[in-house]
Amino acid sequence: MGIHNYFKSLSDLEELYRCPGKFKYQSHSVASHSFKVTKIAQFLGTVEEQMGRTVDWKALYEKALNHDYPELFTGDIKTPVKYASNELKELFNQVEKQMTEKFILKEFPKEYQDVYFRRFTEAKDDTLEGKILAVADKIDLLYESFGEIQKGNPEPLFLEMYQEALDTICQYDDLHCVQYFLKNILPEMLEEEGIPAMKLSEITEMIINRHEKV
Amino acid sequence: MGIHNYFKSLSDLEELYRCPGKFKYQSHSVASHSFKVTKIAQFLGTVEEQMGRTVDWKALYEKALNHDYPELFTGDIKTPVKYASNELKELFNQVEKQMTEKFILKEFPKEYQDVYFRRFTEAKDDTLEGKILAVADKIDLLYESFGEIQKGNPEPLFLEMYQEALDTICQYDDLHCVQYFLKNILPEMLEEEGIPAMKLSEITEMIINRHEKV
Amino acid sequence: MGIHNYFKSLSDLEELYRCPGKFKYQSHSVASHSFKVTKIAQFLGTVEEQMGRTVDWKALYEKALNHDYPELFTGDIKTPVKYASNELKELFNQVEKQMTEKFILKEFPKEYQDVYFRRFTEAKDDTLEGKILAVADKIDLLYESFGEIQKGNPEPLFLEMYQEALDTICQYDDLHCVQYFLKNILPEMLEEEGIPAMKLSEITEMIINRHEKV
Amino acid sequence: MGIHNYFKSLSDLEELYRCPGKFKYQSHSVASHSFKVTKIAQFLGTVEEQMGRTVDWKALYEKALNHDYPELFTGDIKTPVKYASNELKELFNQVEKQMTEKFILKEFPKEYQDVYFRRFTEAKDDTLEGKILAVADKIDLLYESFGEIQKGNPEPLFLEMYQEALDTICQYDDLHCVQYFLKNILPEMLEEEGIPAMKLSEITEMIINRHEKV
Amino acid sequence: MGIHNYFKSLSDLEELYRCPGKFKYQSHSVASHSFKVTKIAQFLGTVEEQMGRTVDWKALYEKALNHDYPELFTGDIKTPVKYASNELKELFNQVEKQMTEKFILKEFPKEYQDVYFRRFTEAKDDTLEGKILAVADKIDLLYESFGEIQKGNPEPLFLEMYQEALDTICQYDDLHCVQYFLKNILPEMLEEEGIPAMKLSEITEMIINRHEKV
Amino acid sequence: MGIHNYFKSLSDLEELYRCPGKFKYQSHSVASHSFKVTKIAQFLGTVEEQMGRTVDWKALYEKALNHDYPELFTGDIKTPVKYASNELKELFNQVEKQMTEKFILKEFPKEYQDVYFRRFTEAKDDTLEGKILAVADKIDLLYESFGEIQKGNPEPLFLEMYQEALDTICQYDDLHCVQYFLKNILPEMLEEEGIPAMKLSEITEMIINRHEKV
Repeated sequence: MGIHNYFKSLSDLEELYRCPGKFKYQSHSVASHSFKVTKIAQFLGTVEEQMGRTVDWKALYEKALNHDYPELFTGDIKTPVKYASNELKELFNQVEKQMTEKFILKEFPKEYQDVYFRRFTEAKDDTLEGKILAVADKIDLLYESFGEIQKGNPEPLFLEMYQEALDTICQYDDLHCVQYFLKNILPEMLEEEGIPAMKLSEITEMIINRHEKV
Repeated sequence: MGIHNYFKSLSDLEELYRCPGKFKYQSHSVASHSFKVTKIAQFLGTVEEQMGRTVDWKALYEKALNHDYPELFTGDIKTPVKYASNELKELFNQVEKQMTEKFILKEFPKEYQDVYFRRFTEAKDDTLEGKILAVADKIDLLYESFGEIQKGNPEPLFLEMYQEALDTICQYDDLHCVQYFLKNILPEMLEEEGIPAMKLSEITEMIINRHEKV
Repeated sequence: MGIHNYFKSLSDLEELYRCPGKFKYQSHSVASHSFKVTKIAQFLGTVEEQMGRTVDWKALYEKALNHDYPELFTGDIKTPVKYASNELKELFNQVEKQMTEKFILKEFPKEYQDVYFRRFTEAKDDTLEGKILAVADKIDLLYESFGEIQKGNPEPLFLEMYQEALDTICQYDDLHCVQYFLKNILPEMLEEEGIPAMKLSEITEMIINRHEKV
Repeated sequence: MGIHNYFKSLSDLEELYRCPGKFKYQSHSVASHSFKVTKIAQFLGTVEEQMGRTVDWKALYEKALNHDYPELFTGDIKTPVKYASNELKELFNQVEKQMTEKFILKEFPKEYQDVYFRRFTEAKDDTLEGKILAVADKIDLLYESFGEIQKGNPEPLFLEMYQEALDTICQYDDLHCVQYFLKNILPEMLEEEGIPAMKLSEITEMIINRHEKV
Repeated sequence: MGIHNYFKSLSDLEELYRCPGKFKYQSHSVASHSFKVTKIAQFLGTVEEQMGRTVDWKALYEKALNHDYPELFTGDIKTPVKYASNELKELFNQVEKQMTEKFILKEFPKEYQDVYFRRFTEAKDDTLEGKILAVADKIDLLYESFGEIQKGNPEPLFLEMYQEALDTICQYDDLHCVQYFLKNILPEMLEEEGIPAMKLSEITEMIINRHEKV
Repeated sequence: MGIHNYFKSLSDLEELYRCPGKFKYQSHSVASHSFKVTKIAQFLGTVEEQMGRTVDWKALYEKALNHDYPELFTGDIKTPVKYASNELKELFNQVEKQMTEKFILKEFPKEYQDVYFRRFTEAKDDTLEGKILAVADKIDLLYESFGEIQKGNPEPLFLEMYQEALDTICQYDDLHCVQYFLKNILPEMLEEEGIPAMKLSEITEMIINRHEKV
């Protein structure tokens, strides 16, 4: 039994990389992803609150922070495998739940078992907070895939990821924060793509000329 | 102006590595560190609550999640520089505050400026949540330095970091969670150190013998 | 349809790392692992042949070379998940088979589909070649875990891997090559572990003295 | 003497990187390269067989698997050095042969020395299998250089490598498998290059519109 | 006290990376940067000498070699922080000087303290050698930022770095070597940018045709 | 022709790693190595000067800075290959010289060709400066191998490198700086090795007790 093992396991999430088996210019660990998702969820929650909805911040932070922790037990299973059949998906979820439960029973003192079992299993449910997490998770995926596309990654998978992420975000467009994202943030992101190829020669000439005139 | 720039900056924290200029077996980004500190703070808050104290979870999560964000503007300044004189420290804090303010005014819409200015500047204050953050920050530093010592890093700096981290944690030993850490978690960690050098030869012989007897 | 996609996928195996989610001093890709397993199998087959058994070299090389290729479709699923229940394992195998079949039907011209379907699915069966592959796969795992233990990796998982690998090898000790490995190669490996801590001071003194006497 | 040293040396090939001294987006070890060459040779052999020629599979696999093993002894010597003069090339080959021989005599038991001396020295000869190896080796080089060009590597060396590789492949165009490669696989590869710059804005708009209409 | 600590610290400069917190295709350590700056300064000095000016080579090499050594004590402070106010800059310089002095007093024997204090503090002054160093430092920065722009880095910071570097170089255009650089070297660099997207298809066709005609 | 190509080639030395084909905890590029050798040579020259000898600083810096530049043309050839026979060594040196000459004729304007041909070929000769370079080169190798041994690298090669380096240094023990190194710096280095395994448990207990007493 040991909370030490739990604390130590957090560092394992730094060694678990997303999208294995594909060349990437920039790699992202599950630890970093969890951080970014929580920060994004924080902003999305702020938008909802600003628009008058009540956000259960404690629930939102818990969901965002812990949503990928069980990957520690199951490893990185490719999505098409997971969703190959309803039966397999169902079995997977059972196994994931059992492994999480086993870990908690082994490592956590009795008085903390209930709260952690809840923290590690609740996630993308139908509450406002569950929906915000679902959106934040996909916004980070959108940024990860955009980053690869923008840097010139020729692998078509990243375009598929971009499309799948955006598609899922749009499914939550009854949320104020999704409307805000689609109207204000996404256009700023796409604008970047449009930056014309840098004309270094012209910039260079301009700088040199400016000095010569002095 | 652009929340897009804020979301994109989160990825810069994945490229900012802690303890630059020293050989490390395992590197830790500021993004990963922030994730681990927030998870540790979550556990420490749970201990306090279990012992009857009221935790302002929203405040705790905000502090933990954002506590190192301003490093994005200032870079990684070595501690001895920062604390070389009170005058320098004071000036430095002013500059950090100004740069954070400038970023928020430039990138955030008016309606979100106040909340983010608070989020990026409040941190290790005298509230229960501020203290828990201070402890969580040092527990992660303790784990990072322990990891290097355990892997055999000959650089004395990591022993200094271990000592400094533990020393600071002890200063908060009026907190239930610090007492819990010192009594239950730290001994588990140190026990690991004591694992006798693995006697592979004996283990090997045992396994082979077991098979031969069958 | 495209053999080009098949050739390109070989490079994806260079980006698929074994034992994700754990700190390692040295990482091994599935491509490198497949290479080493094939080279080890080549030696083991040579021992069998030397002892008078007939080796179907074509079959042996095919098995060794392709044994982990389907990981491309399924990703790296942690063993305990895979073996959580017979039902899950069965379902998994079906899904893996379907995904492999789908890839072949999509990318390979008709005239090559049969041979590749056989190449990607046959593997550790009860033939001599299937057994040699099973042993070679575990010998490489033994070397990978030994490498981490020897370099000082404090993670207990590597000792477990070492034990599991050796245990499986021993189950095939009716093979000449396993007897050869246990008698001749394993002791050489363990001898390395026994190298006394290098006494640099003594070596240094000796070298300096030798020069002074000249 | 020790097969253990031979097995251990396989891991050194994982640490030997191709094309040192040049910036690369994706690095390839000699171990990975050997794996890919063997897989490519397997396909090329399959084409020959399909066209009615007899392939000595054992010979083909041996050649492909071992063709770069002697780099372990000589290191990575730049091609222009090696071919600076016939005299130097001759001397180099002698030295490589001597070092390989020395290694085998030192590490391999007598009964395995002959077979390994053959395995480590035979390679790109005038047999069908030797030719297939020569082609497979260059196809992998073509893919490596194509990968860099496609990702935007501004270093002209990769274009030279691409040209040199293709040029050599063409010299074997009496082989069915080369004709197959030039006719069926290479065009698929080049088609990729032609993918128009991704119009993320249009894709984005399309996805959003689709949702709005629902 | 120990020159050993000084020698060992040189390796710390290999672990100190320039431009932290930003995605880069190619990273540059302070050690590598110092090497390149010294080599560039050597060429610039050669130009000055060729044009009839007297170069104090000892001074030039000392300045170039040591100009970033104090970063070891202060860490990588972002430029905008350093120059936020004259007062802060002044204080920083004092602290840097004190830390350098403290290191020298602690690690160097008395007879070498003066020379090293001079070596670690003199740098970009108004002498010819000081000016050459200032230019060489910016030429390397220009190459580093050009490298990122050329490889397709979408981060605008690298264009800003390019402009700032060129701007500073131009301020020294009374130097022969700066005129030489602007007239002869910079145009060669920019020419590279203009290389038309490689038309692999055409090159490929040409090579294949050439063989067919034979 | 282009100095631009020369400047750009400096960055290739950042991508050329020393001791390829062996697992290393810490890698060193030829660029970093050249920097460290020049810094070490600077100190050794200072010792000679302090003891009354005249140092030709310009020559010393030139030798140290450029001594490994020709590796750019030849790649990393393993020492045993290079020295396999006098004939091969002789031929190899000729080729290296020709390639260096070819590069200079191609890239450098006429007026700079002589000086660079001298800079790239002179090195470890019998002058005081040539000897200091030879020693500095080996001191850096000693530090590199010591670093691996100290971190626990089980590869015997690093002990061989340590011995070979020390042995060569001792051959120059008529130099004041070598005597200084052997007497003052080497013992400091070896003292580090003697640091007893850190007793974290005791340190931990001490820190906790100190706080409890307050």
